[in-house]
Amino acid sequence: MTFSRNSIASSSYMTGIEDSEGIPYLYSRGYKNDDTVIDLGASRIGGKDFIVAAGPCSVDFDYLPDFALELKKAGASVIRGGAFKPRTSPRSFQGSGEAALRQLVEARDVTGLPVVSEIMDASQLPLFSDIDILQVGSRNAQNFTLLRALGIQPKPVLLKRGMGNTVEELLNSAEYILQGGNHSVILCERGIRTFESSTRFTLDIGAVPILRQKSHLPVCVDPSHAAGQRDLVAPLSLAAAAAGAQMLLIEVHPEPERALSDSHQQLTLKQFKELMIQIRRIRESLERNI
Amino acid sequence: MTFSRNSIASSSYMTGIEDSEGIPYLYSRGYKNDDTVIDLGASRIGGKDFIVAAGPCSVDFDYLPDFALELKKAGASVIRGGAFKPRTSPRSFQGSGEAALRQLVEARDVTGLPVVSEIMDASQLPLFSDIDILQVGSRNAQNFTLLRALGIQPKPVLLKRGMGNTVEELLNSAEYILQGGNHSVILCERGIRTFESSTRFTLDIGAVPILRQKSHLPVCVDPSHAAGQRDLVAPLSLAAAAAGAQMLLIEVHPEPERALSDSHQQLTLKQFKELMIQIRRIRESLERNI
Amino acid sequence: MTFSRNSIASSSYMTGIEDSEGIPYLYSRGYKNDDTVIDLGASRIGGKDFIVAAGPCSVDFDYLPDFALELKKAGASVIRGGAFKPRTSPRSFQGSGEAALRQLVEARDVTGLPVVSEIMDASQLPLFSDIDILQVGSRNAQNFTLLRALGIQPKPVLLKRGMGNTVEELLNSAEYILQGGNHSVILCERGIRTFESSTRFTLDIGAVPILRQKSHLPVCVDPSHAAGQRDLVAPLSLAAAAAGAQMLLIEVHPEPERALSDSHQQLTLKQFKELMIQIRRIRESLERNI
Amino acid sequence: MTFSRNSIASSSYMTGIEDSEGIPYLYSRGYKNDDTVIDLGASRIGGKDFIVAAGPCSVDFDYLPDFALELKKAGASVIRGGAFKPRTSPRSFQGSGEAALRQLVEARDVTGLPVVSEIMDASQLPLFSDIDILQVGSRNAQNFTLLRALGIQPKPVLLKRGMGNTVEELLNSAEYILQGGNHSVILCERGIRTFESSTRFTLDIGAVPILRQKSHLPVCVDPSHAAGQRDLVAPLSLAAAAAGAQMLLIEVHPEPERALSDSHQQLTLKQFKELMIQIRRIRESLERNI
Repeated sequence: MTFSRNSIASSSYMTGIEDSEGIPYLYSRGYKNDDTVIDLGASRIGGKDFIVAAGPCSVDFDYLPDFALELKKAGASVIRGGAFKPRTSPRSFQGSGEAALRQLVEARDVTGLPVVSEIMDASQLPLFSDIDILQVGSRNAQNFTLLRALGIQPKPVLLKRGMGNTVEELLNSAEYILQGGNHSVILCERGIRTFESSTRFTLDIGAVPILRQKSHLPVCVDPSHAAGQRDLVAPLSLAAAAAGAQMLLIEVHPEPERALSDSHQQLTLKQFKELMIQIRRIRESLERNI
Repeated sequence: MTFSRNSIASSSYMTGIEDSEGIPYLYSRGYKNDDTVIDLGASRIGGKDFIVAAGPCSVDFDYLPDFALELKKAGASVIRGGAFKPRTSPRSFQGSGEAALRQLVEARDVTGLPVVSEIMDASQLPLFSDIDILQVGSRNAQNFTLLRALGIQPKPVLLKRGMGNTVEELLNSAEYILQGGNHSVILCERGIRTFESSTRFTLDIGAVPILRQKSHLPVCVDPSHAAGQRDLVAPLSLAAAAAGAQMLLIEVHPEPERALSDSHQQLTLKQFKELMIQIRRIRESLERNI
Repeated sequence: MTFSRNSIASSSYMTGIEDSEGIPYLYSRGYKNDDTVIDLGASRIGGKDFIVAAGPCSVDFDYLPDFALELKKAGASVIRGGAFKPRTSPRSFQGSGEAALRQLVEARDVTGLPVVSEIMDASQLPLFSDIDILQVGSRNAQNFTLLRALGIQPKPVLLKRGMGNTVEELLNSAEYILQGGNHSVILCERGIRTFESSTRFTLDIGAVPILRQKSHLPVCVDPSHAAGQRDLVAPLSLAAAAAGAQMLLIEVHPEPERALSDSHQQLTLKQFKELMIQIRRIRESLERNI
Repeated sequence: MTFSRNSIASSSYMTGIEDSEGIPYLYSRGYKNDDTVIDLGASRIGGKDFIVAAGPCSVDFDYLPDFALELKKAGASVIRGGAFKPRTSPRSFQGSGEAALRQLVEARDVTGLPVVSEIMDASQLPLFSDIDILQVGSRNAQNFTLLRALGIQPKPVLLKRGMGNTVEELLNSAEYILQGGNHSVILCERGIRTFESSTRFTLDIGAVPILRQKSHLPVCVDPSHAAGQRDLVAPLSLAAAAAGAQMLLIEVHPEPERALSDSHQQLTLKQFKELMIQIRRIRESLERNI
């Protein structure tokens, strides 16, 4: 399932799976044809598996472990929660920091599920020693110093696409991590910048099959940031599952209207439960042989 | 299911469902809350129905009726076929014109299915007297003279979104048709212009639920033009069905490699048959109550 | 001054000056190396000449001839004025129609300057019999029926770039006109759709030298629509002149705050006079030999 | 000259000069109306001054001081040179590192001009102790850890706009630096991501007057990265000067065809000399009173 060379894509600048000397990139199917599967004990990411990570944008309340148990019951396999928030304005809430990380670790202990949180700089690595998956946010997608540092440590990295980056640039950012020796990278589409303003970003749903074709790495979709509004998270989640994503990253908050960041786009627990039922059905329908 | 006023969208310029004097637009849920359903005898478009239109980009072979029978057998409910092609360059193949329209009419007679083809100017209306659905292409999405002319004739119009148009502009283009008295308009997302070049256009999958929220009109997705390459048509079709589209418009050609236009993106009949099985399963999974 | 083949541009899909059979496009320097100059008696457009067209967005007042005399005194060489307005919404003011055209013709008679107005459909050609330059708006930039019709009549055409069109598509739209035999086409950059929302459109200033390199046709810039706000029209006009544009199309209104369309972006007469002084100085500085 | 509130811009999400509590941002004219001028001894940046920074993309040759003398003779007031290069692919040349910084310091000593180079991470600060201006590249425009670190050190910062960032986001990134106490920030427009592919990026020339209106900080334009090809650097430079930029950042290389990065877009010394003559004329024409 290598990338078709006589397609539109290969006739444009997206040259694909090899560098100028003909050596395949580490992210490419040319380097490794079989899907990479990241084994996290309780959860497996990639290959034929499909999992959902869920949790609040920021951990801005003090009972995350209890809430995480509810998310697990609803079907979440990974718990997400923001501790350090890269906000456009320095005057916006910047996250609860280490207190949030402590709650995440507790949530992991209580649920037995792996936890994911965003790291903003290599100097924060010691703080993340008990976090299972390190997330690189859209604004750091080409922070190559950070990417290199994550390449020489062992934890899986959830790498979000820069809002102004092409699919090819996302793959090259992954290459910076892979090159250091860390082969556990999850590619995450989260919406790109376009002229359309009725959604916060434009979810590039076509990136999902393109990434699956070109790379053996697991492909995740974040419908929450692309949508920017609660009502759109369900249809975008279902679309992502149908298009072949292997993971979803969904913002769910016990009281979205009180959230200190991304209040408009976080689901309630009730909405998340209903969505999980629909997602499961879509997945079952896709897994049947033709 | 009216458009949420406290969303990102309504806080931006997309003011939604009323004009400056507070009178709801004809396309809006504020004017008419129930889904518009277009009844074409053999097929119904909109509401809870879901249908697939299929056929070649251009009718550039001479046995369309036979091929249409195959498409019907595979599950197509509408037959598409280009006669007049709006090509970027005047030196590209411009379509087979009236000969193509004649084949379409014959295909309709043989299959009993409605047929759809693109009209490029109001002066062509007499030529389209036997065509069931008139398509307005992306390049004419704001050709207001054409839209007005289609508003004062009775045939359903499949209105494609301009590649540089917002969702709000698509709705306003529909309004030009509705205002003339023709209330049978199908809104069609077909990919927008963005910086991403690994696909021909970027399918704005978020437009599907937005259009469903804001308008009672049926929503169609054209995955073929968005993809620009055959391999992506299936995942984009499934994503569109999962996101709530009520119709798909898929390019299928008996011998794609011989096609005189859009050769890279047309499916083979075999690929179309397999895709229809997957689409049906997705739809069944969505139609079950939670 | 043909288009450099070892540039970024030629290595992407912009293949430039020849079709697939190696025959140069009529718009290209490969077909005709010398600049096309359109002679309108009182004004020349193209080559080393530089002119400014000015006037209201819509002719929505009844003393255009007097106002045109003021514009001429300030340095305008062509009078513009909208009669039929392609508005996004059918509920917006649609222009004063034939009454506006009559005023334009009178303005021409009084000033001796050529006049330009937008034509929306080939069926309007008889109405435009006394208009000197026919404008094709951004929304009709790929209305190929209209472009073909303008190719087989003798009047110069001011062809605006579609807001979602590439430079290459603009050139191909020009080709539709040239192919009919009409070689008097002016290419007009007017801003494209991007994610940036602090201006109405993003003026693609780089398109000016690209068009000058690739084509012998005169290049015009419309700073008013790109800006969307009065304060930006002057800096964008000066930038366009400095980048090599041969013509500017500027919206000026006797009372902008009363204008029925584009009220925010039209200059007052006083602002236009000051701008003309600056434009003249920029032009003089550029015309001196190094 | 505060930002007009009844413009298109302020009616969109770009709320401008105050935060939600009505306190003006430090970057804004509301906080400080007079232009910020950064005094670097030999050069002043901002206010009515206009200067040009020039030098190679990467210092990939061993006689930078001699070359810098030539650039000074041609009119450059600041010498630029890349040491650490943030390349999309980890397999591309990553810069000459500390050896390049040493050459830059020598160039400064020989010419007496300040030097600017890109810093990729706060941990590199000690290496840049003798560099006069610290550049933040487009890919780090929202690396808030880096921005904060640059806010609590005294050197001027040349902050490039992220290729996927709005004008408002650029200003907010500046705010991260200003908030730390460092008020010497230069805002640099360098082209944004759009669908147009005939240039490497689309230079957002409208951002220049918008930034001048909204902020007291000096505004720089980098025409080289926007263009992506040598032939376009001159027209884009002249356009930027005409639009009100106070600084230009131009790539010039002794032998562009041998450059290890951005080979296509670097000017020769001869081209730079000719361009400086034109720039000077444009500036003179703009500085005369009306």
